[in-house]
Amino acid sequence: MSLRWGIVPAAGRGTRIQPLAFSKELLPLGTWGDGARERPRAVTEYLLERMLAGGVNRICFVISPEKTDIIRYFGARIGEVPICYAVQQNPGGLCDALFSALPFVAAADEICVGLPDTVWYPVEGFRFLPDGRFSFLLFPTAKPELFDAVVTDHRGLVEEIQVKRQSPASRWVWGAFKLTGRDFSRLHELWIERRREDEYVGTLVNAYLAQGGTAAGIQRGEVYVDVGTLNGYREALRVLSDRSVIDELAS
Amino acid sequence: MSLRWGIVPAAGRGTRIQPLAFSKELLPLGTWGDGARERPRAVTEYLLERMLAGGVNRICFVISPEKTDIIRYFGARIGEVPICYAVQQNPGGLCDALFSALPFVAAADEICVGLPDTVWYPVEGFRFLPDGRFSFLLFPTAKPELFDAVVTDHRGLVEEIQVKRQSPASRWVWGAFKLTGRDFSRLHELWIERRREDEYVGTLVNAYLAQGGTAAGIQRGEVYVDVGTLNGYREALRVLSDRSVIDELAS
Amino acid sequence: MSLRWGIVPAAGRGTRIQPLAFSKELLPLGTWGDGARERPRAVTEYLLERMLAGGVNRICFVISPEKTDIIRYFGARIGEVPICYAVQQNPGGLCDALFSALPFVAAADEICVGLPDTVWYPVEGFRFLPDGRFSFLLFPTAKPELFDAVVTDHRGLVEEIQVKRQSPASRWVWGAFKLTGRDFSRLHELWIERRREDEYVGTLVNAYLAQGGTAAGIQRGEVYVDVGTLNGYREALRVLSDRSVIDELAS
Amino acid sequence: MSLRWGIVPAAGRGTRIQPLAFSKELLPLGTWGDGARERPRAVTEYLLERMLAGGVNRICFVISPEKTDIIRYFGARIGEVPICYAVQQNPGGLCDALFSALPFVAAADEICVGLPDTVWYPVEGFRFLPDGRFSFLLFPTAKPELFDAVVTDHRGLVEEIQVKRQSPASRWVWGAFKLTGRDFSRLHELWIERRREDEYVGTLVNAYLAQGGTAAGIQRGEVYVDVGTLNGYREALRVLSDRSVIDELAS
Repeated sequence: MSLRWGIVPAAGRGTRIQPLAFSKELLPLGTWGDGARERPRAVTEYLLERMLAGGVNRICFVISPEKTDIIRYFGARIGEVPICYAVQQNPGGLCDALFSALPFVAAADEICVGLPDTVWYPVEGFRFLPDGRFSFLLFPTAKPELFDAVVTDHRGLVEEIQVKRQSPASRWVWGAFKLTGRDFSRLHELWIERRREDEYVGTLVNAYLAQGGTAAGIQRGEVYVDVGTLNGYREALRVLSDRSVIDELAS
Repeated sequence: MSLRWGIVPAAGRGTRIQPLAFSKELLPLGTWGDGARERPRAVTEYLLERMLAGGVNRICFVISPEKTDIIRYFGARIGEVPICYAVQQNPGGLCDALFSALPFVAAADEICVGLPDTVWYPVEGFRFLPDGRFSFLLFPTAKPELFDAVVTDHRGLVEEIQVKRQSPASRWVWGAFKLTGRDFSRLHELWIERRREDEYVGTLVNAYLAQGGTAAGIQRGEVYVDVGTLNGYREALRVLSDRSVIDELAS
Repeated sequence: MSLRWGIVPAAGRGTRIQPLAFSKELLPLGTWGDGARERPRAVTEYLLERMLAGGVNRICFVISPEKTDIIRYFGARIGEVPICYAVQQNPGGLCDALFSALPFVAAADEICVGLPDTVWYPVEGFRFLPDGRFSFLLFPTAKPELFDAVVTDHRGLVEEIQVKRQSPASRWVWGAFKLTGRDFSRLHELWIERRREDEYVGTLVNAYLAQGGTAAGIQRGEVYVDVGTLNGYREALRVLSDRSVIDELAS
Repeated sequence: MSLRWGIVPAAGRGTRIQPLAFSKELLPLGTWGDGARERPRAVTEYLLERMLAGGVNRICFVISPEKTDIIRYFGARIGEVPICYAVQQNPGGLCDALFSALPFVAAADEICVGLPDTVWYPVEGFRFLPDGRFSFLLFPTAKPELFDAVVTDHRGLVEEIQVKRQSPASRWVWGAFKLTGRDFSRLHELWIERRREDEYVGTLVNAYLAQGGTAAGIQRGEVYVDVGTLNGYREALRVLSDRSVIDELAS
């Protein structure tokens, strides 16, 4: 039986939003209506909600050895879904963090990846990403130069990821992706061949495409907010306090 | 040379605003303009700012043995003022927490006490409290029945503290107080006599007054927000985003 | 490709050896000759050494949410073997702890289980346990009434586990075991049927045998020391300081 | 009323005995006979026992912001003596650590200082150090070149401290000292004048003597073991397991 994993890279130091007294993934942002009682919500719970809506049945957090407040907070499971924790021993960028989860994933498993300090809509976004292939969930944004802009062809296949490039050729940025364990291993092998030099996902995927790999870009995202900075945090507070703002941002 | 202490009772479990991944005293609330760079601000930093404005030259946090994130966050000092940490071994209410700091204070020292999950104005409030005597900084509030309402006579002396009483005789509640180490010791002895049964400050002070002790109520507070609940947290966000709201709340 | 897991249940509170300032699994015990330099060794490193000698290629620690010092100490891997961490949310005994790792194991995987506060010889003990079936590594002991004594028939199959029974019918106690992911799942289903009432492994295995399950008892252990008590700790210090004592204990 | 402080510098990183899963001051070493039940003993509890035997009524630990396991372990008090915690913000040597406690000490207070990773005899050693003056408790040792050897004149006054010098002129090393808050402040001022360059106590005291300060060397120590290295740890285990060895070491 193959599993459906959600991998949550949460090992980063959060230097863009310091000092915090805790891991930036645990920043309170909005609330849950928890039955009769409202309670604070950690920013990562937005991503977890989306992963659960997308059908994942296992979560793997990748943490650094010091960020154990994440374990104390989330513990054994989220809803009914069991959580395990892998460790990125030393800071080494997002690719290295993601591959820290690879040893625990089987080739036939499906893997959903998202960033724990982002809030995006629609909640069911992962459902637009098909099983069995590598695909990115794309979001329209007014400032694609701050992110990984994804250029797709007429069939929806990714041609190039433009990493924080001035005046990129697309205003669509990726906010989440999905792939099989097999493709995850292929990416890992490629990363090793490239001497582990890719810190972020974009350049590694470009190399993967150059080798003949394919990936789809699915333009079904609506709103994407990076909460990892103070400005993003404030924007997220605004988005959450007035959901009508979503249409405005997404338009 | 006598010292001017700020005592910060931060040992409570924060059951009114759970779950948080960290001590509730470290909840981010607004920002500091830190020279060139804005940075997040922990709620307790509002109280510390007020203590520094009031001239304290030593801070003593009282924490529980588990709330060590407070030490990692604040460390050795705030500004130029050295911090030490006392420990309340077991949950035992606010009085017990405060008296955990008593062994480190001398009779001639001045002591400012405030609550770390509150935000109040004016920032220089402690300056209205005189040296050498026991006095409370009072704030007008629309819902005094939720707090300790302080009834004063025509000279400004406290007659009674009405603890969470329906329809209290005063709309002024205390938000901070100041006393000498000598009076702090007297309160402690009285608390021991009363078998440590006073959990909160109000009932103990009433007993102190009944014994012939005196305390002044200084009606110089303007705005008082209890951030220890979700509703208070939201009110604080509102207060901080629009300082004009202060006059409204204070009127 | 099937994996070979070592599962390390490290969620217990260690009430038999308190107070310690850290998780009892991290108690220093002897040293490693670490190339040029000798360094302290945590008691769990004895079990991990035996798991590595037995060929495991993945480690899963089961911890409680508070025992995060284990993650800070071991981090991402031991030698070349990746570690992941599962969480036992609430104290619930050894069976519950072990099954917290089950969601991350595949049916075809092999699983080695040992106790992190024990030291036993020979180091290569796990190699005596065959793939593809449920088997226990048995150790002779002078006080089998303190442990799970394992009664085997003439073919070496387990007939009964006598849990802390006065005058047990065997002086052989189990110190480690091995089984497939498939059998691990069967045990879990049985445990659920029995309303999760088995706290320790012995009674659950007896029920498994009663249902027609089989397990082998392999009498290849030589020395077994339970380090989870002060007396055991001292015995372990003695064993390690004079390895000749092993023959004495094992005889 | 003046206080009698015990200051425990526990902010060091313990690089001589790594890796440990916890602060080196919490290394288990021997046991307490705790009424009916024996329990493990942290190495620092030897120093605390000696401070209590010497009459201290306040303890100040100096920790680094990360070494909060010390607070979880010791909490609010040891026996009846209240503990507070000061913080050394950045690693800066022993002098800097000690002076982190200075803001909480009054001029008239007496201060006992010892090192938390040492075990020495006799237990009542601090009682040989008089009130009102600066004095060192000296221990005979076979390897004074590893420590601070203290040269005294015929009246018992310190002439010089020879820091880790080959073939020092004395085989007596200091293991603890006592001074008033006033002298502690004088040392601090001198340290500031010398640009905070003294990392260890010996060179600072030599400068103090050169300025006309005086200190006594009291040769009443018997056994001194530095537990901060693996070899010292083993020697301490030997000393504790066979107290007769003390006479041998002390002779």
